[in-house]
Amino acid sequence: MPGTPPTRFVYLGPEGTFAEQALRTVPAAERGSREPARSVGEALDVVRAGEADAALVPLENSIGGAVGVTLDELAEGDPLVITREVILPVEFVLAARPGGSPAEVRSVAAHPQASTQCRGWLRDHLPEATVVDVLSNGAAAAGAAMGEYDAAICAPIGATRHRLAVLADKIADHPDAVTRFALMSRPGPPPPPTGDDVTSLAVYIAHDRVGALLSVLMELAVRGVNLTRIESRPTGEALGRYVFFLDCTGHVADVRLGEALQGLHRVCAGVRFLGSYPRHRWSPAASDRPVPAPAGLSDVDYADAAAWLTRLRAGRLS
Amino acid sequence: MPGTPPTRFVYLGPEGTFAEQALRTVPAAERGSREPARSVGEALDVVRAGEADAALVPLENSIGGAVGVTLDELAEGDPLVITREVILPVEFVLAARPGGSPAEVRSVAAHPQASTQCRGWLRDHLPEATVVDVLSNGAAAAGAAMGEYDAAICAPIGATRHRLAVLADKIADHPDAVTRFALMSRPGPPPPPTGDDVTSLAVYIAHDRVGALLSVLMELAVRGVNLTRIESRPTGEALGRYVFFLDCTGHVADVRLGEALQGLHRVCAGVRFLGSYPRHRWSPAASDRPVPAPAGLSDVDYADAAAWLTRLRAGRLS
Amino acid sequence: MPGTPPTRFVYLGPEGTFAEQALRTVPAAERGSREPARSVGEALDVVRAGEADAALVPLENSIGGAVGVTLDELAEGDPLVITREVILPVEFVLAARPGGSPAEVRSVAAHPQASTQCRGWLRDHLPEATVVDVLSNGAAAAGAAMGEYDAAICAPIGATRHRLAVLADKIADHPDAVTRFALMSRPGPPPPPTGDDVTSLAVYIAHDRVGALLSVLMELAVRGVNLTRIESRPTGEALGRYVFFLDCTGHVADVRLGEALQGLHRVCAGVRFLGSYPRHRWSPAASDRPVPAPAGLSDVDYADAAAWLTRLRAGRLS
Amino acid sequence: MPGTPPTRFVYLGPEGTFAEQALRTVPAAERGSREPARSVGEALDVVRAGEADAALVPLENSIGGAVGVTLDELAEGDPLVITREVILPVEFVLAARPGGSPAEVRSVAAHPQASTQCRGWLRDHLPEATVVDVLSNGAAAAGAAMGEYDAAICAPIGATRHRLAVLADKIADHPDAVTRFALMSRPGPPPPPTGDDVTSLAVYIAHDRVGALLSVLMELAVRGVNLTRIESRPTGEALGRYVFFLDCTGHVADVRLGEALQGLHRVCAGVRFLGSYPRHRWSPAASDRPVPAPAGLSDVDYADAAAWLTRLRAGRLS
Repeated sequence: MPGTPPTRFVYLGPEGTFAEQALRTVPAAERGSREPARSVGEALDVVRAGEADAALVPLENSIGGAVGVTLDELAEGDPLVITREVILPVEFVLAARPGGSPAEVRSVAAHPQASTQCRGWLRDHLPEATVVDVLSNGAAAAGAAMGEYDAAICAPIGATRHRLAVLADKIADHPDAVTRFALMSRPGPPPPPTGDDVTSLAVYIAHDRVGALLSVLMELAVRGVNLTRIESRPTGEALGRYVFFLDCTGHVADVRLGEALQGLHRVCAGVRFLGSYPRHRWSPAASDRPVPAPAGLSDVDYADAAAWLTRLRAGRLS
Repeated sequence: MPGTPPTRFVYLGPEGTFAEQALRTVPAAERGSREPARSVGEALDVVRAGEADAALVPLENSIGGAVGVTLDELAEGDPLVITREVILPVEFVLAARPGGSPAEVRSVAAHPQASTQCRGWLRDHLPEATVVDVLSNGAAAAGAAMGEYDAAICAPIGATRHRLAVLADKIADHPDAVTRFALMSRPGPPPPPTGDDVTSLAVYIAHDRVGALLSVLMELAVRGVNLTRIESRPTGEALGRYVFFLDCTGHVADVRLGEALQGLHRVCAGVRFLGSYPRHRWSPAASDRPVPAPAGLSDVDYADAAAWLTRLRAGRLS
Repeated sequence: MPGTPPTRFVYLGPEGTFAEQALRTVPAAERGSREPARSVGEALDVVRAGEADAALVPLENSIGGAVGVTLDELAEGDPLVITREVILPVEFVLAARPGGSPAEVRSVAAHPQASTQCRGWLRDHLPEATVVDVLSNGAAAAGAAMGEYDAAICAPIGATRHRLAVLADKIADHPDAVTRFALMSRPGPPPPPTGDDVTSLAVYIAHDRVGALLSVLMELAVRGVNLTRIESRPTGEALGRYVFFLDCTGHVADVRLGEALQGLHRVCAGVRFLGSYPRHRWSPAASDRPVPAPAGLSDVDYADAAAWLTRLRAGRLS
Repeated sequence: MPGTPPTRFVYLGPEGTFAEQALRTVPAAERGSREPARSVGEALDVVRAGEADAALVPLENSIGGAVGVTLDELAEGDPLVITREVILPVEFVLAARPGGSPAEVRSVAAHPQASTQCRGWLRDHLPEATVVDVLSNGAAAAGAAMGEYDAAICAPIGATRHRLAVLADKIADHPDAVTRFALMSRPGPPPPPTGDDVTSLAVYIAHDRVGALLSVLMELAVRGVNLTRIESRPTGEALGRYVFFLDCTGHVADVRLGEALQGLHRVCAGVRFLGSYPRHRWSPAASDRPVPAPAGLSDVDYADAAAWLTRLRAGRLS
């Protein structure tokens, strides 16, 4: 029911991963239920089936890039919309059963992406340890808790959940790495505009020519709409056929974004709306500040122009 | 009163010029009154004052270019709108009092633009004749009728009006030369769209940079609006400050032209609407055929896109 | 002979007009001969025939716009190039034979453009006087000197030449009005770049579509070349067929302007080069300051990029 | 040594995968040595170290998209260039030890991407079988050969190598799926142009704004260079900072592509050249035909324009 916050959440499991940690930053999730799912597809299908109200899944990582499976689900499955984004610093810890010490660590369980992101730290601090690939950060923590491995690379929440001691924290080579998660729900009216919103789209273009992509960008540029992200994914039909995932500044309720969306709808082979939601300002960096509408492109400017056109059509020029 | 055809016409005089000839092609002018004015400014002021309903004045000539005084009046005087265009072939004749012959012609009266356009013919056929500059084609015919000159270069209607004999016709060096006239009225609802219309604008841009003009053209191009004419005129403030006169394909009532107009209104320092009116198809040439709306830019496409946006905003994605 | 300054000048006559006044600002003209011509066409033909080295003719006026006859000569006659521009304030004076007073002025001789530009002053100060149209400002001064009219509107130099007294100066309604003149010579190497140059072009586009003009502007914009002027003139073939006169920032010897010119040569139906010459900085206004090359577009940037490409083609990537 | 074909090849192993199969389509590889590498990074490092002459690694898959690890190596490691592309249909087979039958298959080993791409076939034909994730298609075949699993999903070459019988072929849900591989070498002169070439680039843009990406596309569009592929990858610095991988039509030796590259070099924060090489025409589809240079953009047109500019600069206009 619109207006009622979702109460049943699912997230990409298992327990004790960054996805769970990200979900815990959503106030409503603290009051609701939180169930892990085995895959992004399963998490989204649970929402599609009405068995949960919202799913939290990863969209992209500042190191590893887009999460392809999430994008593919967004583009092709039954429609879902993003209602919130959560950006979480990727702060890996090395965790072990209490009482251990780094010097005794001979085996480290880690998801391959995690060990890749901590490669420098491992080389410097545990050059002799064997790294064992496991399927998730949560599984790494669970394995260490059960004594299968001497230690695990995991999220802080993984150490907490599995009662592990943190031997070292912030061990990732890129200290600024973040993961961006999306909270996805069945279609419904978007959250109200805040003045600093993001609108996500999946756009299909008819041809693989520079002209077609130029047309898409011009529809945005003419309305002063900026892109904060563009990702291409193959459509699966043939090489050179892509769907583009765009994150635009603004909200579907904004006049200029509405006009740009209509323009894309006319010139593209297909456009799927993936939601308008508040930007998550997780950093004070200058480049993250909201960008005001360029001159002539505010809702007021649009209203002025529309009123002028109405007068013209009625023959009133002064 | 809207719906009632204008009945009192003025035109750029004197009598017996191409402007009168052009006005006679307008059916309503045959039933109404037709008065010459001494200048473009006077003709337009008579309409502004309500003493006439419409004025016929020249806009441009395919040889001599834009008629600057008309453009300046359109840009700066009290607003008037073009409700009809008339394109008239410029067919000069050499006319003299009956009984004369080309061999006896020693002096030819002509407006300087007329003698310029007939320079080749004069050199070949009347190499010995003296050309005397006069202020209009009508004055040339009148002078010949009064015996001041042996002959006149004038419009066919000038010969008729002054009872002159045509010694030679179609004497212009450019046989395809045409003049385009505008019928101008006080502001009121434009004539209904015909599917093959022109919209005229005067556009001020803030700076003399290529970027500003590019922005104007992009507002049109994104909506598939073509330009059939672009003229620049100085604004009188400084060198490098221009007003651009644009003739666009389409009617102010068309959705895509309306959106383009609103875009210009937002990005330009000023836009003056100068009327939407049926294109005068005076020639069957291919390049003159109406151009259908490009794919995605018809009124139906706009309506589809608008309906889609409405659904998005309401949260209905399927 | 290249390197030797021209010594035989012609200018648009008669004597005592702004054109002569403009020519007197050219140092070499003070040492050379200066002959008036009866028309722009005659002045240019004298240079084409080798009977003079350079002709000074008006290009445009900040009030009246482009001088069509000059543009047409530039576009269609045997090639000439602009080697210098002269911008001259249009400061009209009311001049009369010595001993007269404004109160006695009943008739004023003036070129129609001159009386138009002084309309406000005449209405305020000589409301009863009759304005008589004459063919040039010089003719007005000559007529007043011979007693045909009580006074003349003319250039300061006209009063001097005809020994008239100045009854009132700066009588133009637009005190900032200027006229821009071009000094034109037979083709030869352009004057060396100064860092603040203008390049003039006549550009023919194949079609009257917005896309064709957009292409021209994009060739310039991509190389960071600005337009300081764009004028359209009909080609005389048909309505809607234009030649565009462009004034661009930069010199034909500049790399980026050279690349832009080559781009225009490839995409346009025709391009005529009309000269590269120093900008005449006649005013200290901010908007007139030279604009440095945008980031990445200086000659040094071009040289860097060219060297990089040469390395790539040779297979040296580092 | 330039001109001598590489003789020592590495490929992404293990043996029996599509990468080996792709390498076998390269004639020189039949005559040279072929060694598997454990990862893309290892394969490329072997070439960088001079221990092999060329490495064959996957670039993208029409279902799964770009191979991120390959792109990251191309963008950031010591420079390597693509000298050849190989496009290979992804034709999965179900293979088992000889004598088995589909009805007896209870466990199927597969790389997760392989089982995903055959999901429909598995559901229809082996609904009861358990799918076991393994690390490569080659490992799946090896496991089946050793009796660990009843069957494997693998490449045809995997069945051959491990002496397995093919129980079913072409079992992928997308029968047109292909993988595109790149043969990479240390920098050196590119292979000569064939008239149907691809040039690959990694492009860094300073800002995440639509304007910056528009600039990149305009540099290409103005020179008539088409994109056949655009992929974004995070740079690892921050969300919203991307490197774009572009595949352009044309060869670095082509004039217009050279000019476009120089333009990108000037306007982008960085450009890395990744090679010019013949397009692999693996399909007769219309959209794959070579696109001739647009009007005005052939090497001849460029030479004409350059000669014209040279004349202009020398002062010869006719």
